[in-house]
Amino acid sequence: MQNARSHVKALTFDVFGTVVDWYSSIVAEGEKFGDTHGIDIDWTQFALKWRAGYGPAMNRVRSGELPWQNIDALHRLILDSLLDEFKIEGVSEADKNHLNRVWHRLKPWPDAVSGLERLRKRYIVATLSNGNVALLTNMAKFAGLPWDCILSAELTGHYKPDPEVYQTAAALLGLSPNEVMMVATHPGDLRASQAVGFQTALVPRPLEYGPGRVQGVNAHPSDLVANDFNELADLLGIA
Amino acid sequence: MQNARSHVKALTFDVFGTVVDWYSSIVAEGEKFGDTHGIDIDWTQFALKWRAGYGPAMNRVRSGELPWQNIDALHRLILDSLLDEFKIEGVSEADKNHLNRVWHRLKPWPDAVSGLERLRKRYIVATLSNGNVALLTNMAKFAGLPWDCILSAELTGHYKPDPEVYQTAAALLGLSPNEVMMVATHPGDLRASQAVGFQTALVPRPLEYGPGRVQGVNAHPSDLVANDFNELADLLGIA
Repeated sequence: MQNARSHVKALTFDVFGTVVDWYSSIVAEGEKFGDTHGIDIDWTQFALKWRAGYGPAMNRVRSGELPWQNIDALHRLILDSLLDEFKIEGVSEADKNHLNRVWHRLKPWPDAVSGLERLRKRYIVATLSNGNVALLTNMAKFAGLPWDCILSAELTGHYKPDPEVYQTAAALLGLSPNEVMMVATHPGDLRASQAVGFQTALVPRPLEYGPGRVQGVNAHPSDLVANDFNELADLLGIA
Repeated sequence: MQNARSHVKALTFDVFGTVVDWYSSIVAEGEKFGDTHGIDIDWTQFALKWRAGYGPAMNRVRSGELPWQNIDALHRLILDSLLDEFKIEGVSEADKNHLNRVWHRLKPWPDAVSGLERLRKRYIVATLSNGNVALLTNMAKFAGLPWDCILSAELTGHYKPDPEVYQTAAALLGLSPNEVMMVATHPGDLRASQAVGFQTALVPRPLEYGPGRVQGVNAHPSDLVANDFNELADLLGIA
């Protein structure tokens, strides 16, 4: 792999789960929201269901059942149905909007910022997320993520794992696919990027769904496997 | 203006001329290129003609005469005709490509990095340039420009001053136009952004075309006028 890897000029990162810990961030904000509004529910279940609604909502866009809409809009669709399901009433539109934007305020995994700082010494580091540009930009400011460039499915009119997302990202960076390495915790993302010629790095995040909720094995025949972003920098020989 | 200005959440920046000094950067690289290749021409004229070809080339795209192509491609079109005009022969394809990418290696004005660091404490700071995403990303790494987000005409399928560029930029940031302030040295850019509802800040750059070559007065009825980015931060009350 050394020869192939030496061509890499940019690392593109999946974000939800790979860079940031959506689960504990949403549970923490949810519990605070519950305290403020006198809502006593299980916010771990609320967080897991919100996230579980995400793939199906995107698939409705990918299949053409829904016209294009960004993740803020899809998160809001799911939120509205969860508010029904959890019988949460009397929340103002402004508060719903604020809660929906919790996805702009997710906390990075402990290694993410320091690892990215190292990786960007040699590579372009960019998001390549289904999250929309505003979400990713606001999150980067909130979390101190030092991206060189914000790339998003929103810029392509497709959602991952559609090949257009990866192909357009490489083209926007002025690179051929084999000059880009996708870094992700989800095998489907790595598979799809590999299918269009990206190199791949798997970073398992066993706590993505909370303690004790590993969802299958995050296995994928990647060029690299690293337990966190600092280990990825080590493997790439970056001080 | 104070009330309107208090809505601003993002500053979008013109880049060529406003943030970076294309003129002296290209003259310096050109002279080095000339020394290496034994080419004795007036690189100040070469730089000025390269830049002068840029507006007309974009207008061929804006009018539909040429299909969409990014600035790297347009710079190369102009470069090829300048190589003819200046009777420069025997340059390899790799060297032409490297020279064309001088636009990825432009030096910032002396105040640009420190001013942006101050401005980004309170605002999202983003490019909004006709330069393509790869060019702007590479330039940011080269010059140490601390953008929160790389926005480009390339993402909109239009070139400034088409209104779609500004409208799409605001939409990608999740903001309404009056929450965005365009920062530019060129009145046409400010005028076009103002026409779709942006706030505006004029930053005159009297050395843009080299010493003693001021091209008319950079006047525009902007919300703010600042001589550089640190003065802009001062005017906005940022320490």
